[in-house]
Amino acid sequence: MNDKSKLLETFENKYSNRDYTIIHEAPEFTSVCPKTGQPDFATIILEYIPDKLCVELKSYKFYLQSFRNDGIFYENVTNRILDDLVEVLQPRYLNITARFSVRGGISSVVEVEYKK
Amino acid sequence: MNDKSKLLETFENKYSNRDYTIIHEAPEFTSVCPKTGQPDFATIILEYIPDKLCVELKSYKFYLQSFRNDGIFYENVTNRILDDLVEVLQPRYLNITARFSVRGGISSVVEVEYKK
Amino acid sequence: MNDKSKLLETFENKYSNRDYTIIHEAPEFTSVCPKTGQPDFATIILEYIPDKLCVELKSYKFYLQSFRNDGIFYENVTNRILDDLVEVLQPRYLNITARFSVRGGISSVVEVEYKK
Amino acid sequence: MNDKSKLLETFENKYSNRDYTIIHEAPEFTSVCPKTGQPDFATIILEYIPDKLCVELKSYKFYLQSFRNDGIFYENVTNRILDDLVEVLQPRYLNITARFSVRGGISSVVEVEYKK
Amino acid sequence: MNDKSKLLETFENKYSNRDYTIIHEAPEFTSVCPKTGQPDFATIILEYIPDKLCVELKSYKFYLQSFRNDGIFYENVTNRILDDLVEVLQPRYLNITARFSVRGGISSVVEVEYKK
Amino acid sequence: MNDKSKLLETFENKYSNRDYTIIHEAPEFTSVCPKTGQPDFATIILEYIPDKLCVELKSYKFYLQSFRNDGIFYENVTNRILDDLVEVLQPRYLNITARFSVRGGISSVVEVEYKK
Amino acid sequence: MNDKSKLLETFENKYSNRDYTIIHEAPEFTSVCPKTGQPDFATIILEYIPDKLCVELKSYKFYLQSFRNDGIFYENVTNRILDDLVEVLQPRYLNITARFSVRGGISSVVEVEYKK
Amino acid sequence: MNDKSKLLETFENKYSNRDYTIIHEAPEFTSVCPKTGQPDFATIILEYIPDKLCVELKSYKFYLQSFRNDGIFYENVTNRILDDLVEVLQPRYLNITARFSVRGGISSVVEVEYKK
Amino acid sequence: MNDKSKLLETFENKYSNRDYTIIHEAPEFTSVCPKTGQPDFATIILEYIPDKLCVELKSYKFYLQSFRNDGIFYENVTNRILDDLVEVLQPRYLNITARFSVRGGISSVVEVEYKK
Amino acid sequence: MNDKSKLLETFENKYSNRDYTIIHEAPEFTSVCPKTGQPDFATIILEYIPDKLCVELKSYKFYLQSFRNDGIFYENVTNRILDDLVEVLQPRYLNITARFSVRGGISSVVEVEYKK
Repeated sequence: MNDKSKLLETFENKYSNRDYTIIHEAPEFTSVCPKTGQPDFATIILEYIPDKLCVELKSYKFYLQSFRNDGIFYENVTNRILDDLVEVLQPRYLNITARFSVRGGISSVVEVEYKK
Repeated sequence: MNDKSKLLETFENKYSNRDYTIIHEAPEFTSVCPKTGQPDFATIILEYIPDKLCVELKSYKFYLQSFRNDGIFYENVTNRILDDLVEVLQPRYLNITARFSVRGGISSVVEVEYKK
Repeated sequence: MNDKSKLLETFENKYSNRDYTIIHEAPEFTSVCPKTGQPDFATIILEYIPDKLCVELKSYKFYLQSFRNDGIFYENVTNRILDDLVEVLQPRYLNITARFSVRGGISSVVEVEYKK
Repeated sequence: MNDKSKLLETFENKYSNRDYTIIHEAPEFTSVCPKTGQPDFATIILEYIPDKLCVELKSYKFYLQSFRNDGIFYENVTNRILDDLVEVLQPRYLNITARFSVRGGISSVVEVEYKK
Repeated sequence: MNDKSKLLETFENKYSNRDYTIIHEAPEFTSVCPKTGQPDFATIILEYIPDKLCVELKSYKFYLQSFRNDGIFYENVTNRILDDLVEVLQPRYLNITARFSVRGGISSVVEVEYKK
Repeated sequence: MNDKSKLLETFENKYSNRDYTIIHEAPEFTSVCPKTGQPDFATIILEYIPDKLCVELKSYKFYLQSFRNDGIFYENVTNRILDDLVEVLQPRYLNITARFSVRGGISSVVEVEYKK
Repeated sequence: MNDKSKLLETFENKYSNRDYTIIHEAPEFTSVCPKTGQPDFATIILEYIPDKLCVELKSYKFYLQSFRNDGIFYENVTNRILDDLVEVLQPRYLNITARFSVRGGISSVVEVEYKK
Repeated sequence: MNDKSKLLETFENKYSNRDYTIIHEAPEFTSVCPKTGQPDFATIILEYIPDKLCVELKSYKFYLQSFRNDGIFYENVTNRILDDLVEVLQPRYLNITARFSVRGGISSVVEVEYKK
Repeated sequence: MNDKSKLLETFENKYSNRDYTIIHEAPEFTSVCPKTGQPDFATIILEYIPDKLCVELKSYKFYLQSFRNDGIFYENVTNRILDDLVEVLQPRYLNITARFSVRGGISSVVEVEYKK
Repeated sequence: MNDKSKLLETFENKYSNRDYTIIHEAPEFTSVCPKTGQPDFATIILEYIPDKLCVELKSYKFYLQSFRNDGIFYENVTNRILDDLVEVLQPRYLNITARFSVRGGISSVVEVEYKK
């Protein structure tokens, strides 16, 4: 476990006998551009089918906030969030879609998916 | 039958010779977060194909209201409503979609489905 | 024929050599809740492919108005309208979608379909 | 040819070597209800793929106006327009959708289709 | 009284002790252009403050329908409706706004007002 | 007090030391046309500044429901509701706006106001 | 009278005893840019209060069409239409608003008003 | 100070040398109907100009939550919130607008204002 | 006259005997930020009442295009356009509103007005 | 000058001979709640009439970013931004409107204005 993924708390999925879908949409994500030092803003959409564990919402909020002063590229932050959640939750399915706000007149989306 | 599912009254489906669809959308659901003790708010959408029984609407309203002061996670409340309705109605098909309002800057949806 | 279905007048479908679709949307349907005695309000959408007969619109209006002071559940009124129309029209296809307004903070839709 | 279809003038389809679609939407159609003598109002949407002939627009307008004082059911007027146009144009495909305004609190749509 | 205004039935304003406002919007008005013989279509909006009399709605509908086959200019039909209603109702205030649909690529509105 | 106004229950305005505004919007009003016997439908908007008394909402609902099978003109029902509420509440200000749905192709609004 | 204003036919305002408003909106106006020879497109909105005369709609359409191959600036065509109509109608009030579509990436509006 | 107003914490308005406006919109308010025991839902909009004190947002949230299981009329809860805030803040201006969701087919708004 | 204002061609206002309004909206304006060297984009809205002269539209387009590779602040470009147009046109009234697109996460508007 | 206001760079208002309006809208403002340590998000709208100086946009962006890790109340941050800008710019008029996103189910707006 790394420093960030340790922030993610889980609780037991009491309904692991069935597949069902959980979506968390976080429009207040912010990190820092590693090239310019300028703040980036994004909406992070997490969709997953839990196996044995669900992510606890408040700890997930703190996990996202931990990127606040990190310098990290769009592509890396999106994949990093997927990796950390997959490591902690071992889900049946997990998708991260990150919608970044306009920089230099360009808006960006990064989407990445995990299947067991 | 548990304490809550006992609240659910049914009436005979007089048209069980055919498949048809019933949708009830309840935008005034509220329960309490088990971590923070803070109230949660959600819209609960129930869609089902009845077999021998239909849920009586007023009793379903009281059933939903019974969660008002319960501390329960989003994922559990959604699955619990599905389980209680499946137990009582023994439907041919049943889906619960729960849309939770913003907490810590994050909005959430949980969706679960039952097929006979 | 029952008391209500007798209200439904028909006229000959002069174009029964082909399939075509007729839709009647009635936003002013009202009946009474059998549990509470309170009035219910709904929009009734009828869609059908006629065989030998079409329903005459004014008689259909009177048929819908005949429920005005009846105590009847959402599910039953929707299926009843389907049954009465199928009995009288013997159509090739018929669908009833009933959208009920908010009761106890919950809005409801019932949808039922007939195929020859 | 009947009295009304004689009003429909045509011109040669110079591009009959290919399929293409023509749509005419007429929101000012009016006829009379045969039951009540009251005026009916509709929007008539004609969509067709011509073969050898196209309908001349001004003659089509006069054709639609010829129903102004006729007593005729929704279902019949819609099918009648289809039949007259098919007879005169011999098209590859033709669809009539008629949207009638509210009568007795009920709005209606009739849709009929012809394929060669 | 002329032939048309005779169609307008009234009923006693039981609340003439106070000023209040009545609006009737009729989107299905049709008459005929005196120049071209082509049908015209309009929405007629009547707003008035009654004195001793109110116009009965069904008779007002028949009054508007009586223009169906009359050849009359936009400006004249609007003023004529005002004059007939003022003659019959003797209201405290009355306004007619007529919105005519497109003719020759031009849409038109005529508005006229009466104050006691 | 008449038969209907007796249905209106009140409760003490505990804040009569100040002016404040209460609005109740009821989209499910229905009565019967005294000419045709057909049902009418309306949205009734009540806005008032209370003096010593407020109208209790459930009793106001029953009061509006009491018109369900009455034959009464639009103009009279609107003024009647104003008069009954003014008699019972003796408010500082009260306004009734009634929006009636389409009859004979015509929609109607009646608005009336009371000031102490 | 000039060549264009001669196209404008009038009819007697039978209701000159009162002020009332007439609006004609013509979205299909086209002329030619005197600099580039490119076609211009505009919506011409005429609003006036007639005195003794009203403009006949078909002649007004022909009048507007007479600009089709004229090379004329936006500002001049708008003022010219005002002048011609004022000359012919001698109205109590007249306003021309011309909305020109995009040329060289720029859209334009010209508005001019006449009062007796 | 009463039991509820004691929940309201304040902080010093460091900018009391000028007038400025603070708005807090709370869409998750819920209390209980004193007649039926059923939950009510509302959006509470607070707008004020502070004098010496501002309301601390988290304590205001707890204050609103304290009504969760109270039986109280719409009119009283709205005035009560105004009184408690005025008592604690002694503001220069304060307005409460409460929008209640549909009960018995009726939606309601209560608005009250305080000026020093 | 400066280098840019020389680009602005005019034509005689043949209707200077009256006040009227001309609006030109140009959504394709671009210049360069003097600090960063990055391109800026804006919509320039010009509204004026001409005196003796009108601005010729094509020359105005070339005038706006002349800023394409200039490094100039938002505030200066907006005032500069006003000054150049006032110098050339000597209008009775002139207003420039410039809406700049997002830069560094910030969108900007500058508005300036001239009256004779 | 304080630590933050020193970040604000200005440039000479070359058009101080006239009043004109500048608006900068910044939707990506973030600071930290002094009570909870949680991040807050807001849109900051600055509107001003400059006197001798204008604020340089990039420095204003850095100024806003300097609040990123500060713990500060909504009311104070809004007034602080006003004070710093007034100190540096000495404008003729300046207004700050700050729209904060949802916290604890409550959204907030603070508005403050300065006039010379």
